[in-house]
Amino acid sequence: MTLDSAACRSHCPINLAAEVFGDKWTLLVIRDLMFKGKRRYGEFLESDEAISTNLLADRLRKLEHWGLIERRQGRAYALTSVGLALLPVMVEITAWSARHDPLTNTPAAFLTQYEHDREALIASLAAAHAAAAETS
Amino acid sequence: MTLDSAACRSHCPINLAAEVFGDKWTLLVIRDLMFKGKRRYGEFLESDEAISTNLLADRLRKLEHWGLIERRQGRAYALTSVGLALLPVMVEITAWSARHDPLTNTPAAFLTQYEHDREALIASLAAAHAAAAETS
Repeated sequence: MTLDSAACRSHCPINLAAEVFGDKWTLLVIRDLMFKGKRRYGEFLESDEAISTNLLADRLRKLEHWGLIERRQGRAYALTSVGLALLPVMVEITAWSARHDPLTNTPAAFLTQYEHDREALIASLAAAHAAAAETS
Repeated sequence: MTLDSAACRSHCPINLAAEVFGDKWTLLVIRDLMFKGKRRYGEFLESDEAISTNLLADRLRKLEHWGLIERRQGRAYALTSVGLALLPVMVEITAWSARHDPLTNTPAAFLTQYEHDREALIASLAAAHAAAAETS
């Protein structure tokens, strides 16, 4: 499964990522789908950062266009394999923030496990996501 | 060295990252500093994605505000330790794009080395950055 990147500003890999998910709100929607078990429009609206309805609709539409999420029955969304493949990116972002933000709400266990065995941490997060998706 | 995150929308680690560098143009400036040996205003303007002067000035100011870059003599910029700590994030982003963008310009050797020994790849990129910084 690949992306339709023909219209991108360049084919630099960092630029592709910037165009596809390099956006304050897009990252939060991916987070909600990947780690928080959220699937529905109303659930994304409830997150602490208070995304507006028009921004949320726009970002969901763009993520669907890029193939990172897909619509399921009952107005629910799910990450595709391409979207779920961002898990290591999200783990590295979390580790960076946890180390540099004195006010971070990242559980201490995250960094401990990251530093001890990053691969096992990623595998356990992927398994948790798969288990949550199965119960939907 | 930590970030002043008191005014952030939340203290979620993904949100912090979204606020600090979750932006189409910011990621390109970090890329140029981290991998392309660029340091000066005019060099950033020359990148393929054609950032405008006002967007570049704004993003440099914000990156300096957050402590990810610092100004050196002669109007040159450099990544701080906090900015350079984003190297694993940038490596994961590159791997994701290289795998999913059929038009990617990522060298094939990148993914080969990433899959063979990710830690060695990160170490070699950090060493290359340090060597380039020394010659500035």
